[in-house]
Amino acid sequence: MDVKETIKDLDSYIPGRSQEEIVKEFNLDKNDIIKLGSNENPWGSSKKAVDAIEKNLNQINRYPETDLKNLKKLIADYSNTKVKNVIVGGDGADEIIDILAKTFIEKGDEFIVPIPTYTYYEFSLKPYGAIPIYGKWDLTTNSLDVSSILESISYKTRIIFLCSPNNPTGGMIPKKDIERILKETDVLVVVDEAYVEYSDNDNVDLIDKYPNICILRTMSKALGLAGLRVGYGLSNPVVIEFMHRVKPVFSLTRPSYIGALETFKDNKFIETSISKGIESRDYLHSELLKIPNLKVYESKSNFILVNIKKTGLTADELSKKLLKKGVIIRDCSSFQGLDEYWIRVSIGTLDDDKKFISILKDVLLD
Amino acid sequence: MDVKETIKDLDSYIPGRSQEEIVKEFNLDKNDIIKLGSNENPWGSSKKAVDAIEKNLNQINRYPETDLKNLKKLIADYSNTKVKNVIVGGDGADEIIDILAKTFIEKGDEFIVPIPTYTYYEFSLKPYGAIPIYGKWDLTTNSLDVSSILESISYKTRIIFLCSPNNPTGGMIPKKDIERILKETDVLVVVDEAYVEYSDNDNVDLIDKYPNICILRTMSKALGLAGLRVGYGLSNPVVIEFMHRVKPVFSLTRPSYIGALETFKDNKFIETSISKGIESRDYLHSELLKIPNLKVYESKSNFILVNIKKTGLTADELSKKLLKKGVIIRDCSSFQGLDEYWIRVSIGTLDDDKKFISILKDVLLD
Repeated sequence: MDVKETIKDLDSYIPGRSQEEIVKEFNLDKNDIIKLGSNENPWGSSKKAVDAIEKNLNQINRYPETDLKNLKKLIADYSNTKVKNVIVGGDGADEIIDILAKTFIEKGDEFIVPIPTYTYYEFSLKPYGAIPIYGKWDLTTNSLDVSSILESISYKTRIIFLCSPNNPTGGMIPKKDIERILKETDVLVVVDEAYVEYSDNDNVDLIDKYPNICILRTMSKALGLAGLRVGYGLSNPVVIEFMHRVKPVFSLTRPSYIGALETFKDNKFIETSISKGIESRDYLHSELLKIPNLKVYESKSNFILVNIKKTGLTADELSKKLLKKGVIIRDCSSFQGLDEYWIRVSIGTLDDDKKFISILKDVLLD
Repeated sequence: MDVKETIKDLDSYIPGRSQEEIVKEFNLDKNDIIKLGSNENPWGSSKKAVDAIEKNLNQINRYPETDLKNLKKLIADYSNTKVKNVIVGGDGADEIIDILAKTFIEKGDEFIVPIPTYTYYEFSLKPYGAIPIYGKWDLTTNSLDVSSILESISYKTRIIFLCSPNNPTGGMIPKKDIERILKETDVLVVVDEAYVEYSDNDNVDLIDKYPNICILRTMSKALGLAGLRVGYGLSNPVVIEFMHRVKPVFSLTRPSYIGALETFKDNKFIETSISKGIESRDYLHSELLKIPNLKVYESKSNFILVNIKKTGLTADELSKKLLKKGVIIRDCSSFQGLDEYWIRVSIGTLDDDKKFISILKDVLLD
C-alpha cells in the first residue's frame, strides 16, 4: 500500500485552530470579536432563508434532493443565463473547482494562476498531479499582466484561472483582457466571480460567445451563506454536462438547498447586502488612507489589501496585536507572490469598521 | 479545450427526478408518502441536534470551522478509537471515498468491488481513470466470496472495497474473512461500515493490527442525519495524515457540524434509533416471508433485499405500482450484479411497515 507520489510531495497537514481556542488563548468575549478575516457578509443571512431552514429541520434525517432544478432556475435568472448553463456545488465554488479538475486534469497537465490570487486553485489541482505555472498579477497597477498569462500557455496547459475581482488584491480584470485571452487560446479559462456583487460588471455574456469559459460564483460572500457551502458554475451546456457526470450526487445539504432557494427569492436582502457592503468598503478605504505608513489598495470587492511594510511590523505581528484586542484580519503571508508585509481586511458593519479603525490606530501608534 | 478521455467514457448525466415532480405525477399527498427507498432513520433526528442547529442559524453567514477537533473526539469515543485515527467528511462517507481516490488512485490503477455492492465506489473512482475489477458477493449464501477477491488482486490493485453489512444484500463479512484478505495483501482494504449500528460487530480493532485498513462510517443511517452529509473515516494515523492533505477545507457546513456534535452526545436517541430499527427490520422480514413468491434475504442492516422474479413483475413495474399507492422502495436494477427482479426495502416506523406490507399484498394479489 502506498499513496501517490503527488500526495507525498504535498505539504503536511497542520490542523487550523478553532475559534474557541483563539477566544480562550486571548481571553476574548466570543460575541465581541470583530471578524474581518474571511470576506463574509457581516450583516448575516436572509431572514427568510433562516426561517425556511428552521421549518425544514424536521427533514434532516432524509437525503437531500439530487435534482436541483428549482435552484438552478433561480441561479439562471439571477445570473442572466439559462438553466442548461448552470451547475451547483455543495462545497461552495471550491467543489466546482474540484469538479473542473476531475473533468479536465490528468497527471502532468499544467494550469496557470496569476499570483497573488486565491490559493484554493492550487490546493485543489495539485493532488490530481497538475503543475501550477505562475502568471503575474501586477501589484503596482493592481491589474492582471495579460502577457504573463499568454506567455505561460503551453501544449500542456489545461486551465487558466482568473479571479475578478481578484482575491486578495481587489482589482478587476477588464472584459477586453479576458476576451483577449479567450481569443488567443482554446484552453479552458475559469473566471472566478466570487466577489462579483461588489464590482462593476460580470462576464456571463461571454458564455454564449466562447466555448472555453467557465464562471465560478458563490453564495458565501454578498449572499450571506458561507456556513452552508453553496457555489455554482456557469458555462456552455457541453462543459456543464461533462461536469455533471462527475459531480458528487448528494453534496448539497438540505439546509443549504432550502437556504439557497429562499436567499435568491429575497431581492431586498441581496440589494441591501450589496449596497451596505460597498458603503462599508468605501468607508474602510478612506479611513485606512488617512493612517500613515499604510499602502492601501483600491478594491472592487468586499475586502481591502494593505501593505504594512513601512509600519515596521510584519503581518503576523500586526494580526496578533489586533487579535489581542478582538479583531481578526487576514495575514496574507501564505499567498504565493506576497511577502510577510501584507494584510487583507474584510468589510464589517459600519460599527465594526469604526471600532477596527480605532483599534488599528491604537496598535500602530503604540 | 478537451475533457479527459475517462470522462468521455462515463455515462451521460441524466438528472434525477425531484420528489416534488413524483408527488405531482402520481397525485400523492407529500405527507402520506412512505419512504422505504434510501435506508434513512424513519424516526427523524436527535431533537437536541435540531435545537442546537436552530440556535446556531444566526451564524450561517460565517465560514464553518476547519478544525473539527471536538467532533473528532466524539467520533473517536463513539467508535472506540483515538482522535488521530479519525477524518471527517462533509459529504458523508462519499467524501471519504473521494479523498481515498485522490490519495491512492492514478490513471490505469485497479480497484476491486464484489458485486452487488454500493455503487458509489465505482462512480467515485472512475473519473480518476481507475478500472473496476469485479469480485463476487455470493447471492445464494449472502456472503462474500473471499477467493473472488484474492484472485482479482494484481500489481495494479490499489483499493479493495468491502461493504459490511453489504448494501444491498444485508449480509455481513465475518471478521476472519476481512483479516484473511488483510493478511494476504498490502493493498488498502476499505471496509464500509455505513450500517454497522444495526449489525453484530465492527472492525475498528483491526486498525491497530493492520496498516492497510480504512473503515468508512456515516451519520446518514442510524444517526439520522442523511440531509446533513456527515461521514467519517477511521484508519492508522499515517494514512489519515495523507488524506487530510487533500481533504476539502470547508466542506462540513455549520449546521452539519453542530448537528453531528449534539447527535453523538445524545446516547438515548442513538440507542432508541438502533433498537427500534432492528425491531422494524425483524418485523418486516417476518412479514415479507409470509408473502408468496418473494425470496427474502436475511439482513444485519436497516434494509431487506427481496427477489421478486416469481411474482412475474419486474422491479421497475412493482416499484411503480407501489409508488402510485404512496410507497417508495428501491428498484435495484442499477446495481451491477443484479438483474431486473430485485428490490430493496428500508425499515420504516412500525406504522409505515404495516401500511407497506398491506399495500404490497394488495399490489401482488391485484
